Amino acid sequence: MKATIFQGPGKIEVGEVPDPVIQNPDDAIVKVTYSCICGSDLWPYRGLEPRETGSRIGHEFMGIVEAVGEAVTKVKVGDLVVAPFVISDGTCDLCLIGETRFCRKFMFWGSKGNDGCQGEKVRVPMANGTLFVIPKDKVKDEKMMSALLPLSDVLCTGHHAAVCAEVKAGSTVAVIGDGAVGLCAVAASKRLGASRIFLISTHEDRAAIGKQFGATDIISARGEEAIKQIKEATKDLGVDCALECVGTNESWEAALGAVRIGGHIGFVGVPHGVADFPAMKLFSTDVGIKGSGAPAGYYIPQLMPDVLSGKLDVSAIFTKTIPLSDIAEGYKAMDERKEIKILIKL
Amino acid sequence: MKATIFQGPGKIEVGEVPDPVIQNPDDAIVKVTYSCICGSDLWPYRGLEPRETGSRIGHEFMGIVEAVGEAVTKVKVGDLVVAPFVISDGTCDLCLIGETRFCRKFMFWGSKGNDGCQGEKVRVPMANGTLFVIPKDKVKDEKMMSALLPLSDVLCTGHHAAVCAEVKAGSTVAVIGDGAVGLCAVAASKRLGASRIFLISTHEDRAAIGKQFGATDIISARGEEAIKQIKEATKDLGVDCALECVGTNESWEAALGAVRIGGHIGFVGVPHGVADFPAMKLFSTDVGIKGSGAPAGYYIPQLMPDVLSGKLDVSAIFTKTIPLSDIAEGYKAMDERKEIKILIKL
Repeated sequence: MKATIFQGPGKIEVGEVPDPVIQNPDDAIVKVTYSCICGSDLWPYRGLEPRETGSRIGHEFMGIVEAVGEAVTKVKVGDLVVAPFVISDGTCDLCLIGETRFCRKFMFWGSKGNDGCQGEKVRVPMANGTLFVIPKDKVKDEKMMSALLPLSDVLCTGHHAAVCAEVKAGSTVAVIGDGAVGLCAVAASKRLGASRIFLISTHEDRAAIGKQFGATDIISARGEEAIKQIKEATKDLGVDCALECVGTNESWEAALGAVRIGGHIGFVGVPHGVADFPAMKLFSTDVGIKGSGAPAGYYIPQLMPDVLSGKLDVSAIFTKTIPLSDIAEGYKAMDERKEIKILIKL
Repeated sequence: MKATIFQGPGKIEVGEVPDPVIQNPDDAIVKVTYSCICGSDLWPYRGLEPRETGSRIGHEFMGIVEAVGEAVTKVKVGDLVVAPFVISDGTCDLCLIGETRFCRKFMFWGSKGNDGCQGEKVRVPMANGTLFVIPKDKVKDEKMMSALLPLSDVLCTGHHAAVCAEVKAGSTVAVIGDGAVGLCAVAASKRLGASRIFLISTHEDRAAIGKQFGATDIISARGEEAIKQIKEATKDLGVDCALECVGTNESWEAALGAVRIGGHIGFVGVPHGVADFPAMKLFSTDVGIKGSGAPAGYYIPQLMPDVLSGKLDVSAIFTKTIPLSDIAEGYKAMDERKEIKILIKL
């Protein structure tokens, strides 16, 4: 079968690999129908994160179950399924309290002998914990398929930013980051009842999607100027909730600058060179901070009904659809920020 | 009248000062009936925090209103009142959202021409925001008086630790710090419905009060050993909520060690030399942190009914009662940790 292979920074190609087979009783084999490229796939692509040459890549997919091991009870052959970006057993103490990202047995796709997900098929370990069935009869069209795929990562990640920032009915929110995660954070905040959502974006196309997802105010400025505009618009108070969806010092400064005294920052941008937080600075503002990789496996069942009803539709983050054979061009376009997120249709 | 004067590190004395008078239309004059000594009063006493020689000190009191300016509407002459440790107007945007600690016009007792509270009378600025009436007919005895006084600071501070750590029905909690604030944090956690409350305490007398307040488990160890015992008792998970009530690196390490993946740390110990928090460390544990000086003015109306009903009684934190004339001995005993907290009866 064909799958995407990481051949070193800047080198992504489709190669021939062995078809996956059931190795353990709780494995499932899924024929991938949709996958996509994540902003975090670009870190090794840009040479900013080490990754083994020749390794498989990709951690987001939907597909049809093709085979199951004898211990698999949650899914059956023929089911349409989606998986979170972390493999988890669903039964350990951490999974049971919703911390599936930190499952006692968690594994990442593409590491420790696990398949990457940008390929024709995927072996799914711990399928009872990792796979989630999508009721096929409720998926009305192709657009809804592309609204479901973000459950595997970006939609749950944006939702996690909103949950960590304690967004609730009536909250004022500032989203920092206009990438796929930031845009999903806008949609998640709207779903949770935010009354006003600022999106910092200097890109008209992204801002337009943000507005479609529920942003009420586009701040087309950066740094101090963006903070100033948010402060002015909130009568010098700042927002209840700042959603940090980038992971740089600049985005953190925007979050800390935009949030009000006693507000919350939810952060989901993997910190890259972010300065440590001074205890006294936090103490003198009563600002709470919380964040991590999202427990997508915990959120998928909560969010899926709203995706299936059409209430939560982030399919617009996919600005281009490509076949697997065009994967190299897909990475290039994402790297050059020509596309927000690329859907791979297999 | 007589009032406590700070005469330099280690030097506390009662001196003669002019009686306070109404200076502004929203001032009130309160005849103090009870005051107390706070752990934070010990910082300048120990020479660890600068403070002007000859300055007034103390920020916790109850008393009877003796006079009011013409703009005072919330209290009247003869009312029994309690005040938070921060003077606040009660009407600004931050006060209105409950952040009274950060009132746009906040002032500290004993600074900027304001009286300290360890004295016979106090001029109360912005009395409509700063004073809270205690219904005299509901105060059944002297013990209840000493259960009400902690509303001015320590009880609200302990409660803030619990609120910031998101303690709720069924939560498992670890309280770090067995001083008056830590003990109040135990009582506040119990009030909020915590199902299990660990108190780290190596002092039998303090541990006994902690048990009386609701601690279910006393951890009579420190550092790594304390963390180990909490982990063992929670089947290697850790607690949902860690309440950091000290403000040192050691107490922070205990909080970070005791809290579970995805849990919350509420911190109210003023950070003294606490190391900054690494963004990546927080990201890799999904632990939320939040804390500050408590918005006592916001909490007083919420907590007072439970104090008056006898449900919330932290009077046991006062291990000694002294007259104002013994204030120097009081500071000495607190400094030497011979007493947990000292009540001054005027």
